[in-house]
Amino acid sequence: MIQIIYRFVLLVAVWISLCVTATAQELIPISEYPGIETLGERKVPAPVGVSPEMLKIVVSRQIPPFVPAPTSEEDWLKLQAIFDVPGGEVGLASAERLGVTYEVKEIAGVRCYVVTPKEIGDRFADVFFVHIHGGAFVFGGGDSALREAVWAAAGLKVRVISVDYRRPPLHPFPAAVDDTVAVWRALIKDQDPAATALFGTSAGGNIVLASTLKLKQLGLPLPGALFAGTPATDLANKTDTWYTLEGLDPLGSREGLIQGAMDLYAGETDISDPLVSPVNADVTGFPPTILFSGTRDLLLSDTVRMHRSLRAAGVPADLHIYDAQTHGDYLQGLTQFLPESDDALLELQDFFDEHLK
Amino acid sequence: MIQIIYRFVLLVAVWISLCVTATAQELIPISEYPGIETLGERKVPAPVGVSPEMLKIVVSRQIPPFVPAPTSEEDWLKLQAIFDVPGGEVGLASAERLGVTYEVKEIAGVRCYVVTPKEIGDRFADVFFVHIHGGAFVFGGGDSALREAVWAAAGLKVRVISVDYRRPPLHPFPAAVDDTVAVWRALIKDQDPAATALFGTSAGGNIVLASTLKLKQLGLPLPGALFAGTPATDLANKTDTWYTLEGLDPLGSREGLIQGAMDLYAGETDISDPLVSPVNADVTGFPPTILFSGTRDLLLSDTVRMHRSLRAAGVPADLHIYDAQTHGDYLQGLTQFLPESDDALLELQDFFDEHLK
Repeated sequence: MIQIIYRFVLLVAVWISLCVTATAQELIPISEYPGIETLGERKVPAPVGVSPEMLKIVVSRQIPPFVPAPTSEEDWLKLQAIFDVPGGEVGLASAERLGVTYEVKEIAGVRCYVVTPKEIGDRFADVFFVHIHGGAFVFGGGDSALREAVWAAAGLKVRVISVDYRRPPLHPFPAAVDDTVAVWRALIKDQDPAATALFGTSAGGNIVLASTLKLKQLGLPLPGALFAGTPATDLANKTDTWYTLEGLDPLGSREGLIQGAMDLYAGETDISDPLVSPVNADVTGFPPTILFSGTRDLLLSDTVRMHRSLRAAGVPADLHIYDAQTHGDYLQGLTQFLPESDDALLELQDFFDEHLK
Repeated sequence: MIQIIYRFVLLVAVWISLCVTATAQELIPISEYPGIETLGERKVPAPVGVSPEMLKIVVSRQIPPFVPAPTSEEDWLKLQAIFDVPGGEVGLASAERLGVTYEVKEIAGVRCYVVTPKEIGDRFADVFFVHIHGGAFVFGGGDSALREAVWAAAGLKVRVISVDYRRPPLHPFPAAVDDTVAVWRALIKDQDPAATALFGTSAGGNIVLASTLKLKQLGLPLPGALFAGTPATDLANKTDTWYTLEGLDPLGSREGLIQGAMDLYAGETDISDPLVSPVNADVTGFPPTILFSGTRDLLLSDTVRMHRSLRAAGVPADLHIYDAQTHGDYLQGLTQFLPESDDALLELQDFFDEHLK
């Protein structure tokens, strides 16, 4: 994963040298907020409360330089193509390392990865879980989608269908949600929705929540349980931990590439629309949901606000926060032994055992 | 509560002018940690994800200046006496505001407050919950103990026994734990332990966890459920959020008064002892536990690490994190209307309904 970050930084440098013109985007001018705190410079040592394996990850972290958002469709497409290469390599290598096989298959006209682990648990012998990959809505498609799908398939001993949904710039919202709903409709012809989990991390967590809202709006059967890992739930606002934890998370900053990708994803749709920013959704009747985040995760606020929203609606919703983890760190167990990653898989196993039919 | 902070700052200023000589204490020299991150100065605006009432609290926050720890028993006693005055006033005023009555009573030789709300729910007609007050182990006793006890009694419609445990400098560990265990032994002669919750915030959360460990060691019946609000669980280490969130939480900093109070509490006992730092405890067989913290809480790391420890031991443990809350903010509903405080009470109600016999 560290290697990916280095590659990322390298690729970004190359790309910037291609003279894409862009400037830093400001979300809501700070001057419009009341009660600004100025935090002085401080030294933050490595944390004491993590495993030795996690400590190695923490001390090797690199915060990337500011990455501006592309300003033309062509430049977005270039960047997308560049970014998906290392992610795809990790996806393929991880599948091999963990003995997970896959085939690419069209389901309801949507490109999907059907992922099969070496061993399938009795518990999940008859079902496929549905995975929605992350990557800031724009990236992480193709073979990159295998990463979390492989992690969950091997860790939970379950077959997974990963939806390689259509992405911006060519296909902004609602393409991703429509693709997920289409795959869901097809899948539940053959398996019990109440026995099926829908899951994803980051932008994937957003699309998991948004698609569930869409299913609810359509009156279709909902999944039996959701896993939303450090989900981006408020695309309209730079929520608190984007400020307070800046400088600690390799995700970098909200301005520039990330907000640009969010805006690109929303497209013509109001970025506060509950299907784009699920923190604004009426989640009454949602299935039991498990959420993960970390104390150094820029999306910690997005995650805990969504948890509160689910709880306020009476949804069984479990929150697990890992000390000193940044955005999606629990997935790093994909490429190396990481006790915190195994712990996350145990929580998922427990949660699905309890809530899936 | 804001008023309390102002008074606090004022009193501290008075006290410092009394020429108590003390210098900043450093816990573990930063130079001994690997992987130090330097965080630059940053502006943190008020958060978007809170209620209007919470927003007012956030924008009025004052971070107190550095407070050194007293260096003699006499100075600790002076400071203790000064600090307990405003806390006691709030306790008494809150009892009156919320129509909660109380009497001071000795139970098993320990001074306790027996707190009775205006209305007692049918659910809890026959039981007393047991409350352990916070206040950095040294402060928060006497009438101050009424604050959280009144909040819970009125909010949950349950009678509460608040243990006014013996405190340092005269009575370091294990006095607080011994007092709690003594009250517990006496209480469970007349009521079902499985129907009884033990709860507290901050140092109170620590003593709740430590006393439960002690009961387990003694082979005594355990409470039916625990509430540990933003508990101080690692007194030996300055955990991650003490660094990352410094400057946001009116608790100030770990060095000086707070670490001094922790050291004073541990006394002759190894500060890493599981009965002093419960994050090190074997919590197998612990009762279901609910934990609260906030994304600006200096004890967020202490809280989430304890949650992980409970989960690793297979204990049903629920974590609720409030966006932008600092240490114990949910208790501010004691003196004003605060939706987040009502939300916390609902979570407690739900949790106790589910887990208490």
